[in-house]
Amino acid sequence: MEIPVLQKLRRPTLLLDENKARKNLKRMVKKAKDQSVRFRPHFKTHQSTEIGQWFRDMGVDCATVSSVSMANYFAGEGWKDITIAFPINLREMDAVCELAREINLGVLVESIYSTNILDSALNTKVNVWIKVDTGLHRTGLYWNDRNGILNLVRNIYKSKNLKLAGILTHAGQTYGAKTTEEIIALYSRSNVRMLDVRNYLDFKGYSGLDVSVGDTPGCWLCADLGEVDEIRPGNFIFFDAMMEDLGVCRREDIAVAVACPVVAKHEDRLEVIIYGGGIHLFKQAIHTLSEDVYGYISILETVGFRHLPKKNFVSALSQEHGIVKLTREEFNKICIGDIICVQPVHSCLAVDLLGDYLTLGGRIIHSMNSERIKNLRW
Amino acid sequence: MEIPVLQKLRRPTLLLDENKARKNLKRMVKKAKDQSVRFRPHFKTHQSTEIGQWFRDMGVDCATVSSVSMANYFAGEGWKDITIAFPINLREMDAVCELAREINLGVLVESIYSTNILDSALNTKVNVWIKVDTGLHRTGLYWNDRNGILNLVRNIYKSKNLKLAGILTHAGQTYGAKTTEEIIALYSRSNVRMLDVRNYLDFKGYSGLDVSVGDTPGCWLCADLGEVDEIRPGNFIFFDAMMEDLGVCRREDIAVAVACPVVAKHEDRLEVIIYGGGIHLFKQAIHTLSEDVYGYISILETVGFRHLPKKNFVSALSQEHGIVKLTREEFNKICIGDIICVQPVHSCLAVDLLGDYLTLGGRIIHSMNSERIKNLRW
Repeated sequence: MEIPVLQKLRRPTLLLDENKARKNLKRMVKKAKDQSVRFRPHFKTHQSTEIGQWFRDMGVDCATVSSVSMANYFAGEGWKDITIAFPINLREMDAVCELAREINLGVLVESIYSTNILDSALNTKVNVWIKVDTGLHRTGLYWNDRNGILNLVRNIYKSKNLKLAGILTHAGQTYGAKTTEEIIALYSRSNVRMLDVRNYLDFKGYSGLDVSVGDTPGCWLCADLGEVDEIRPGNFIFFDAMMEDLGVCRREDIAVAVACPVVAKHEDRLEVIIYGGGIHLFKQAIHTLSEDVYGYISILETVGFRHLPKKNFVSALSQEHGIVKLTREEFNKICIGDIICVQPVHSCLAVDLLGDYLTLGGRIIHSMNSERIKNLRW
Repeated sequence: MEIPVLQKLRRPTLLLDENKARKNLKRMVKKAKDQSVRFRPHFKTHQSTEIGQWFRDMGVDCATVSSVSMANYFAGEGWKDITIAFPINLREMDAVCELAREINLGVLVESIYSTNILDSALNTKVNVWIKVDTGLHRTGLYWNDRNGILNLVRNIYKSKNLKLAGILTHAGQTYGAKTTEEIIALYSRSNVRMLDVRNYLDFKGYSGLDVSVGDTPGCWLCADLGEVDEIRPGNFIFFDAMMEDLGVCRREDIAVAVACPVVAKHEDRLEVIIYGGGIHLFKQAIHTLSEDVYGYISILETVGFRHLPKKNFVSALSQEHGIVKLTREEFNKICIGDIICVQPVHSCLAVDLLGDYLTLGGRIIHSMNSERIKNLRW
């Protein structure tokens, strides 16, 4: 007999273990508080005002988002201190100006060109952070490009509406680490580089600048967050197969899973086909020695999730199909029509695709993408 | 001065060149008609009733979809003959029964287990197709599993509510081909296998069964569609970078592109950062000798798209960022705030993520995923 929450399910559905998420959250809040570091969590992971409220209940009153749309969504629910951690999009100046009048808004800049346009478009003050690249090489000014950074700082000081809040980095290079020791070393090295920039600017007369950092692997694993003012991790609230694979969390810490109906079984290949494809799970793989893994498998039972050994995994995804490879033992236990749960490789993306959460208690939690699932996926 | 349609754009937006799509459509309709093959196009590519109407205007009155939700969406717009080309999901029996009373519904089966449950759940007739695997090894009974297929046929004939329409395959192995000659050979071999199954069933007394096939590479490239009754390609209406890379279409045949604002430039790496990431473009790569390519770059000009050489491409995607590698020449022409267009690797997926289309004439075309974009992405 299926447990109650599964009986409701018809289509691929995002399950949320609320207790696990709250436990992960509590640990991160405590760590930041104990070390007197401002906690500005990244909300692109959950994209939900209801889950945002859990943060508020624990005393968190500022947030990070990845788009102007997301900032608007959270501002609408009373969040008054938001940083958009994405290079300022000059085509959204109207929305940025409106937001800046309503809340304490932070934006990212990395060029004099963008900074000048931003300044002249604004009619109110906005906090700007200089994006610094400490090794990821995605965006930002290189940490050791002293002239570039100094020129940008001087330009911001000359501006009418921009207030320099500090320097900000995302040390996402930790995601490419091979060991937890390497994660800790990369996080620490990134911090050293950020402090070097701050000290240099201090020496040049630009003092009092904050340092903002924050990737989940580093912030979760490092006992000492370092001499930074602010951390911005997001993924830690749910974790995922990638974080487990990196050694950042344990499988039992992962708070989300995508529940997928089994629609076919192929005994000769020990594969089952699930209704759950790239548009539900997102097509991102963990590359192991012999296979690409698009998610690990768990079975929801009365007592909670039973995590199958890693030999059971999603091996391929097309638009709506997933192929799951199973051991003989697990294959035999599964029937067509059953629900199996996939711990996704990257939870932020699966959440974005699926839009709504169903808690293990059977409650629906909405996100900013809810409209889509309301019409189609339930 | 930017051309009018681009002036409207703030965020990643799906552009549609309506003329190209209609031209691709016209060619496929004519080919099927000339060869007296039923054309049951796959609508998972466009997911839009308005674009569905273009098919109707050319005399197409039946369709293929990939989910019950999608069947409901098109049935709601008057489509009366729809096949759900996905193994029947036993958890959606209520919706399937309702649909089967309203329209001429086709579903896929591949096991006696599912067939029996389907039959007892129904209270009206439904057409079933047996899914046959001619080499893709995703779903279906192997084409040479004669006993398995025969047993399933007999079981369907004994059923109360199931009418066996025929045998159906998706020869998606053509997507893995290295040359167009190989695509043609794979398509033809798949058809030979399907005809072998039909002849065998005919010999066993089950005559008059239709053969349904249909992948874009095979259906587009093969001059002779073969002795099949029905084709179900979908992607051909838009095409994408993957189809161009396979040699199926030319770049100028690709009818969709994702318009993305440029938010940063990094001259030392000749890279620009676009607002356009995995949640907009979908993270699927073409693996070339030296790089993973997540899309090719085009610039929309007054006279139409200018396609940049393939040395200009999307090299990485995170949630909302894309990294675009450019030649020095193209890098110098692009400013922060400009819009560049990405020809996506897999158009079906990018369409699913972005929800709405903006035609080059500035008209919005909705899809079944429109709600999401209405609230967030515009």
